[in-house]
Amino acid sequence: MRVGRPRDEKVRRAILTAAQELVLEKGYAAVTTADVAKRAGAGKQTLYRWWPGKGALVLDAFSEWVQQAPRLSRRKPSLSSTLVEFCRGASEAAPVLRALMAEAQFDEDLHRRLVAQLVRPRGDELRACLEDRRPSDRELVVNVLSGLVWQRLMLNEPLDAQFVRFALRVVERI
Amino acid sequence: MRVGRPRDEKVRRAILTAAQELVLEKGYAAVTTADVAKRAGAGKQTLYRWWPGKGALVLDAFSEWVQQAPRLSRRKPSLSSTLVEFCRGASEAAPVLRALMAEAQFDEDLHRRLVAQLVRPRGDELRACLEDRRPSDRELVVNVLSGLVWQRLMLNEPLDAQFVRFALRVVERI
Repeated sequence: MRVGRPRDEKVRRAILTAAQELVLEKGYAAVTTADVAKRAGAGKQTLYRWWPGKGALVLDAFSEWVQQAPRLSRRKPSLSSTLVEFCRGASEAAPVLRALMAEAQFDEDLHRRLVAQLVRPRGDELRACLEDRRPSDRELVVNVLSGLVWQRLMLNEPLDAQFVRFALRVVERI
Repeated sequence: MRVGRPRDEKVRRAILTAAQELVLEKGYAAVTTADVAKRAGAGKQTLYRWWPGKGALVLDAFSEWVQQAPRLSRRKPSLSSTLVEFCRGASEAAPVLRALMAEAQFDEDLHRRLVAQLVRPRGDELRACLEDRRPSDRELVVNVLSGLVWQRLMLNEPLDAQFVRFALRVVERI
């Protein structure tokens, strides 16, 4: 099967969209790569050309979703607005994030991808809002915030406005 | 099958020991309740009289393990010694804790048990070392510490002496 690049990209997009839809409809655990390929009108082999398995595919399908919205102004975002955005995205995607982090405990490749595509970029975004802090303090704050968020996620507790206020109170004290 | 209480307790102990041994030998994912029953010389139905499944059984088998060692003196333990103990236990049991937290994401009953048997008691032990702090600060410190530890566990990063120093530095600043 020889397909041109634009066609490839179209199929890849269709698979990502199908993965996102199916996970939102049925929940991570109930979705198979065969379901996703079928919904996207693609072959399972095509899917496996780009992703080694369900975890990596779903991670790609959702990592754009939890990314920061593109900035409309050139002003540097504040820590609080970044944290609000961060928690909004993480709340909406919470069941998927919990499932991916869970599966990553048994799958080293997925674990690496999760750190590279989600954990590290979100940490970098927080770090960028802390340029007025000393570098060592910056790491400390990023670790604390990221620990609080992941703990909440895994304990299935809300990442709501009250949590954001709590987290910002912690940061003020550090 | 009518068995007296002491015999019951002996079988229950044998199952817990078998679960602990097998998980340490083969890893959580590879162990089945049938393996555990066989090693303990018990029937699978006997096992299911006490535990609804592998997760709850393994949690029981390891929650004693990560408990604080019984105190030999009446002196209240310091936050740093409690945290050192806490990290030592969590490090040794790390693969099991990661597997249980992962499975709990798909199993609400196990999630409740994990919070009740592990997350909350460890939080209470930390809280007990913070009696000189204001109550609101105490909650803040417990949340931060527990967040840092669970994040490290799930990201598979070491809970070593360097981490303990880092965590204590965070607490001093709060």
